[in-house]
Amino acid sequence: MEQGKTTAELNIGDRVSLTRQITDSDVMQFAEVTRDRNPIHVDQEYAKNTIFKGRIAHGLLTASLISAALATELPGPGNIYLSQSLHFTAPVMIGDVIRTEIEVIEKIPEKNRVRLQTRCYNQHGVMVIDGEAVVIPRK
Amino acid sequence: MEQGKTTAELNIGDRVSLTRQITDSDVMQFAEVTRDRNPIHVDQEYAKNTIFKGRIAHGLLTASLISAALATELPGPGNIYLSQSLHFTAPVMIGDVIRTEIEVIEKIPEKNRVRLQTRCYNQHGVMVIDGEAVVIPRK
Repeated sequence: MEQGKTTAELNIGDRVSLTRQITDSDVMQFAEVTRDRNPIHVDQEYAKNTIFKGRIAHGLLTASLISAALATELPGPGNIYLSQSLHFTAPVMIGDVIRTEIEVIEKIPEKNRVRLQTRCYNQHGVMVIDGEAVVIPRK
Repeated sequence: MEQGKTTAELNIGDRVSLTRQITDSDVMQFAEVTRDRNPIHVDQEYAKNTIFKGRIAHGLLTASLISAALATELPGPGNIYLSQSLHFTAPVMIGDVIRTEIEVIEKIPEKNRVRLQTRCYNQHGVMVIDGEAVVIPRK
């Protein structure tokens, strides 16, 4: 299996970008596994009468694009997820195409930790999640 | 549909507790919908040779117990999720029974916001997630 990067192999400014569409099927499947069947996510009749004017994706579904990018790309396999902050800055509608940007912003070699900026944008360039993660890269 | 509580209806110290087992099926389904197929979550042969000695649940799968509790219980339907901090303080193994505790810790009536402490514990009483959420309760 491909190995993730170690702290020594990572540099401040290293970044990765991943793009994925959030589909109706993603939202329904996420509602199923998490039991979060809030009508704002699963009921169009309800959702169209809210300030969002339609169904939105679960915040943590969009956030999972971040954790997947950390797990598979930067730093990649073998890292341990210590913390994540998430600011949901705009709604994600069904069908939105989300670009996730991960960037190394701090290295703490004495504790073998790395801090990353983790942001998601929609197809209009609007930031939908702002946040940071701290991970322990593989040894 | 049942309505969530408004800021006026919420009090500091209001709390809710939900318990759910994290099953193998949950983890495999979460890996599918999020595309996070990190072997630590889905490959027992790989996982047993890590410091965790076995497969662990995705951090955001456990975190989704928090967002589901906020969405459905406290403050409940109609609230808008603004932010969430997550500290993954211990691993969640397949089969662990997770108790999620949500408690109102601050009311900001002038901005119609409420801050909640959001913590998850395993069946041994060990905290697995520590964090806080900020939401806008329904008007």
